Amino acid sequence: MTDAPIRVTVWNEFIHEQTAASTREIYPEGIHAALAAALREHLGSAVAVRSATLDEPEHGLTSDVLARTDVLTWWGHKAHDRVNDAVVDRVQRRVLEGMGLLVLHSGHASKIFRRLMGTSCMLRWREAAERERIWIVDPSHPIVDGLEGEFFEIPHTEMYGEYFDIPRPDEVILISWYEGGEVFRSGCTFRRGKGKVFYFSPGHETFPIYHDANVRRIIANAVCWAAPCGSPYFGDGRRIEAPLSPIAAKHIVDESLHRKG
Amino acid sequence: MTDAPIRVTVWNEFIHEQTAASTREIYPEGIHAALAAALREHLGSAVAVRSATLDEPEHGLTSDVLARTDVLTWWGHKAHDRVNDAVVDRVQRRVLEGMGLLVLHSGHASKIFRRLMGTSCMLRWREAAERERIWIVDPSHPIVDGLEGEFFEIPHTEMYGEYFDIPRPDEVILISWYEGGEVFRSGCTFRRGKGKVFYFSPGHETFPIYHDANVRRIIANAVCWAAPCGSPYFGDGRRIEAPLSPIAAKHIVDESLHRKG
Amino acid sequence: MTDAPIRVTVWNEFIHEQTAASTREIYPEGIHAALAAALREHLGSAVAVRSATLDEPEHGLTSDVLARTDVLTWWGHKAHDRVNDAVVDRVQRRVLEGMGLLVLHSGHASKIFRRLMGTSCMLRWREAAERERIWIVDPSHPIVDGLEGEFFEIPHTEMYGEYFDIPRPDEVILISWYEGGEVFRSGCTFRRGKGKVFYFSPGHETFPIYHDANVRRIIANAVCWAAPCGSPYFGDGRRIEAPLSPIAAKHIVDESLHRKG
Amino acid sequence: MTDAPIRVTVWNEFIHEQTAASTREIYPEGIHAALAAALREHLGSAVAVRSATLDEPEHGLTSDVLARTDVLTWWGHKAHDRVNDAVVDRVQRRVLEGMGLLVLHSGHASKIFRRLMGTSCMLRWREAAERERIWIVDPSHPIVDGLEGEFFEIPHTEMYGEYFDIPRPDEVILISWYEGGEVFRSGCTFRRGKGKVFYFSPGHETFPIYHDANVRRIIANAVCWAAPCGSPYFGDGRRIEAPLSPIAAKHIVDESLHRKG
Repeated sequence: MTDAPIRVTVWNEFIHEQTAASTREIYPEGIHAALAAALREHLGSAVAVRSATLDEPEHGLTSDVLARTDVLTWWGHKAHDRVNDAVVDRVQRRVLEGMGLLVLHSGHASKIFRRLMGTSCMLRWREAAERERIWIVDPSHPIVDGLEGEFFEIPHTEMYGEYFDIPRPDEVILISWYEGGEVFRSGCTFRRGKGKVFYFSPGHETFPIYHDANVRRIIANAVCWAAPCGSPYFGDGRRIEAPLSPIAAKHIVDESLHRKG
Repeated sequence: MTDAPIRVTVWNEFIHEQTAASTREIYPEGIHAALAAALREHLGSAVAVRSATLDEPEHGLTSDVLARTDVLTWWGHKAHDRVNDAVVDRVQRRVLEGMGLLVLHSGHASKIFRRLMGTSCMLRWREAAERERIWIVDPSHPIVDGLEGEFFEIPHTEMYGEYFDIPRPDEVILISWYEGGEVFRSGCTFRRGKGKVFYFSPGHETFPIYHDANVRRIIANAVCWAAPCGSPYFGDGRRIEAPLSPIAAKHIVDESLHRKG
Repeated sequence: MTDAPIRVTVWNEFIHEQTAASTREIYPEGIHAALAAALREHLGSAVAVRSATLDEPEHGLTSDVLARTDVLTWWGHKAHDRVNDAVVDRVQRRVLEGMGLLVLHSGHASKIFRRLMGTSCMLRWREAAERERIWIVDPSHPIVDGLEGEFFEIPHTEMYGEYFDIPRPDEVILISWYEGGEVFRSGCTFRRGKGKVFYFSPGHETFPIYHDANVRRIIANAVCWAAPCGSPYFGDGRRIEAPLSPIAAKHIVDESLHRKG
Repeated sequence: MTDAPIRVTVWNEFIHEQTAASTREIYPEGIHAALAAALREHLGSAVAVRSATLDEPEHGLTSDVLARTDVLTWWGHKAHDRVNDAVVDRVQRRVLEGMGLLVLHSGHASKIFRRLMGTSCMLRWREAAERERIWIVDPSHPIVDGLEGEFFEIPHTEMYGEYFDIPRPDEVILISWYEGGEVFRSGCTFRRGKGKVFYFSPGHETFPIYHDANVRRIIANAVCWAAPCGSPYFGDGRRIEAPLSPIAAKHIVDESLHRKG
């Protein structure tokens, strides 16, 4: 909680923008550029944003970049399989150590989200440009700070519907209604180690959802919420020989049982 | 919720019992035999128990065995690395489909538990034969059904202490006090897909903890709690072409965006 | 977990059925009779059902009746204010001791639910006979046991919408979609003391919702889920003079500080 | 999330300090003065602190004071009964509207905490000046920001032990170990309406616990965490005549059913 800016890395698969005119029209410089602009617009000098994409070496997520990332945002859709497992390992480790992670829209199927959740993370979907109405079910949460009313709307969206195969979220903040008949837990939090994870479903490659004011505000709020804080993380086994308080028993350990077979 | 017995597979690494006299003395036929006896003692004909061990082909956990398992209990310590990843995949899939999973003691470090949790699952530990006092913090839970009082004790135990690197549990039922100064969330539940997971820390290869009446009762209760129930599981992506309710928008999907790159 | 039947008391305000033809037509013998029939249909001899209504002495909820009630179901709408506070105190105490409580539909505004929740329990509503589609978001839960598919529908319902002012539920099992545009956490659980509480929104005095097969099944499942189990409840302050384990400090207590002012 | 200071009202029963030399020695100007000093020390100009006590008119908690309070801290022990119910109503309403509430130590038995929880909030206790070791079980939480290590200690304390009769907390951040053998969920959060509630057990009238550096830091962190944020609160019933989206059914409401009996 110092005054240093939150260091955000916006990760984008960055394929549709290069191959599909429909995407390029909406996000001419890439989805990552739109997200970075949203963060700068809302957070100004409180944030230092860089981006990284699939085609960069190590997908732009070297150990060095990750070490200097407070919050990582993740957008991918078409090429989850092409993300290297070693990079996924590295991102997971950094989340456990405290790096925040925002998983956006089709990122639900990314390797890193599935790794952190332990479930399939699959869902119902339909691309029909239908209306989505997003209801706030936790008005106390910093992630919805500054929003007005009980809900906001997205006029044309891809439907993501339940059953969404995720562990029980720590917090369900938003629930979406879809014109075509489904509901969805569209804003959920999870802790993993010292890291805070926010899944946020709005956003798509051919609808201009990352230009929506409410969506941008929520993503900016979530970056602040996910920035590392708290006490030290202990993620290795710690053998403690001397007890903190006296133990009556005398005991000789058979060390062979603690050696790996 | 029929009258058919719950089909339990008790999985045991089964190494210490064959190599260490101290373990063999306490569990002459293996930890799995002690656990199976506990289940039969408490649940009688309501349960059908088999066992499986590391050295069997596919560790005794073939697709066929898993398909006919309602609840799997897991004890491992020395050879987590030797568990085949394909078997871990298979167990994970069955948990998501609804198979219950009881992870016992040093099973916290097993591949399957770490896979389902997404965290390191590491902890503090000390083998000093100290006293453990296990407090019930959720007296409403079926897993503590029939226990008496506010706590029970284990006279000599291995200490497992916080910080225990697990996701926030769905339910914390038991919290342990250790003579040497630590605390531990010793009985926790997690849902993954349709499957129910219970982590229970008491139990060790050189202390006769699986002969303790309270420990045995909790494990039997947990088997009943973890038995599959509920509604169908949907763990694949479901594309829904026709909406359930009418949609005003007309929309043509660019199918190329939904093909894998 | 014995074989004795679960003793259920179905409480009904029982006003609309006596004053409104529209209600009488659907529930000629009262909503309580429909609910009791649903329980007997699904649970047979596993349940012993009685009913109680507002106009009986002590609203039919004497200490003696409550002492012999395992699960209480609550339906009220028009006369929450007429429920005596002493009866509310008594029901609350029994819930803490372990009695299950099912709060149905407009019971969200009852004194007992608001007492147990600590919040306003208020919500959006509209009576427009619109369609409700109820999505299952926790397929592992015994309350949805035996349901088929991902959702079920109620063709004509009263809308109850978010924000629903309840504490964060222990479990959200069902989320409703409404034709008119809202969503609702329509099936939620809460623990209070040793008691299990289930709030279930479907049900209304002029729609035949308690004749719906899925609704009836859920209520029967919830009665089984809410039946008391677990370990003893401790709800009084317990002064413990002698420590369980040795304490090094010598200390003289100023007893005057522990006497009430 | 503006730069205006967080307006804190530190409420203290303020009896022991006037009647017991042992308390006066440790807190010569009252527990409220020690707490206010801790907040000013940690938060400086980011906080504006006032205090209020039982013997003031309306206990110092007039509508006007509460309307200008962002976070209320509560310490009481001997005279919970003397707190006026109308003031409790008022504090509850303000919490639901978004005011943060820190309930300290013996405040577990206060009317306001019990009102918000819906349970007895009772516990085990022993005043034996024993050692307490407080373990951090959620290192990601802003309430433990800046703490070091896995735990901290209080050399002499009053024991508060499980079973602590509270609803399942939203977050368990701290678990205490006591020399005499108990454990306790000593730092827990709860949302009620838009308000955030933190219960923190350390603190006592005859041990100098509010002079402890870690305890003071946690209380200061918790004030920041509990400060109001988020979206508007809706705590009244909202009848919505016109649907947000079109409804097929035609329906005439029997308005008599919606009038209070």
